[in-house]
Amino acid sequence: MAEAIANPRRRIRRLVYLIDGGPTVHAVVAAAKNRDDAPVLEAVSRDSLDRVLPLGAVHQGLAAEVAPLPPVVLADLIARAPARAVLLVLDQVTDPHNVGAVLRSAAAFGALAVVVPERNAPPETGVLVKAASGALEHVPLVRVTNLARALTDLKQGGFWCVGLAADSMQALAESDLSGRIAFVLGSEGAGMRRLTRDGCDSVARLPTSGPIAQLNVSNAAAVALYEAARQRTPSSNE
Amino acid sequence: MAEAIANPRRRIRRLVYLIDGGPTVHAVVAAAKNRDDAPVLEAVSRDSLDRVLPLGAVHQGLAAEVAPLPPVVLADLIARAPARAVLLVLDQVTDPHNVGAVLRSAAAFGALAVVVPERNAPPETGVLVKAASGALEHVPLVRVTNLARALTDLKQGGFWCVGLAADSMQALAESDLSGRIAFVLGSEGAGMRRLTRDGCDSVARLPTSGPIAQLNVSNAAAVALYEAARQRTPSSNE
Repeated sequence: MAEAIANPRRRIRRLVYLIDGGPTVHAVVAAAKNRDDAPVLEAVSRDSLDRVLPLGAVHQGLAAEVAPLPPVVLADLIARAPARAVLLVLDQVTDPHNVGAVLRSAAAFGALAVVVPERNAPPETGVLVKAASGALEHVPLVRVTNLARALTDLKQGGFWCVGLAADSMQALAESDLSGRIAFVLGSEGAGMRRLTRDGCDSVARLPTSGPIAQLNVSNAAAVALYEAARQRTPSSNE
Repeated sequence: MAEAIANPRRRIRRLVYLIDGGPTVHAVVAAAKNRDDAPVLEAVSRDSLDRVLPLGAVHQGLAAEVAPLPPVVLADLIARAPARAVLLVLDQVTDPHNVGAVLRSAAAFGALAVVVPERNAPPETGVLVKAASGALEHVPLVRVTNLARALTDLKQGGFWCVGLAADSMQALAESDLSGRIAFVLGSEGAGMRRLTRDGCDSVARLPTSGPIAQLNVSNAAAVALYEAARQRTPSSNE
């Protein structure tokens, strides 16, 4: 919530808060009042706040009615991408928990964006926003009409598209991740669709073994982002 | 479910299945019948199956009543740990989703076990089991009375205990992860407790930056396991 209030691109229409909320609630309300476009503020009892929210929703004494962020267009993103930008492309990842968790890891590793197809990706609602823990305010979720076309655009924009698949022979650690990188991850189980995989410049595997060899997609994304960050960090031995 | 049925250490008391279930249901039922200790089998209608399960539970046409796995004692685990074993120690990680996700990554990277304190760790019920996607059948969740004491036992057993904390100066990639390794991860937000951190041989950081620098604990665990696996994989350039 604090992340949303602090984000000038995020329009907050209404902020409902617990009348006897603690210091965190007060800090968020104070920040909301200081915004250029201050939202309508409503101090309410716990019962009233529970009624504003979906049944059983866990909250911290605050509920906001927000407008969706202005959509980010892939072409604009590519045009202003820094030389060593890293982003993630998710193919058919439909679980909002997973997309939210990927956004959070993307924020932690300073990734540029998470790209998903317009269809077959969850909307920016409760579960996704919660799993993202504020990351949506920092990392845009870019929706594209056609994922194969998006990969072509990324490649033309200087991104090296690295798919992740368990059946590849190339280890991720031996992939050159020095320039602009787009990691492409498929859905759990099915993996990337054929057309998506064919659109990648290279396909790499993670060093999993064990009885259940497949990582959850958000963990695979975190590992890929880590590997890129590791390769870019100058070693103290050099 | 198939993982539980295939695990001879797991006692299945009763297996309730959809009478008109698909091939996956039939395969699991057939496997259950073939067990030395075949469970009581009940073919039921969809309505009856829904009544067996908690309200709103998502299922694949199967429900089993199982006995908990026999507990694994840390001392036994240490005694039979291979020379390059890797395990995870979780301090105060109370979210069952997170513990389940950590178990799953542990299975994917062939880790020996996940160690948690008896108190302040979730029980092996629905959410945890589901998030673990069968990993509990392969990677024991070892409960210890005293986490600081467990670290002492691990160190005496030849494990190098590597804590993960954002404020450390040492990069994980520059830590020597060649021998027996125990990665120690704290709760999100609070991190490791002081006594836990003091019990580590070294404390390392992940190369996160960005506006939300902290990874979700299951993602941090996956990255740590990846780094250990990466260091142990002979490079094709060498």
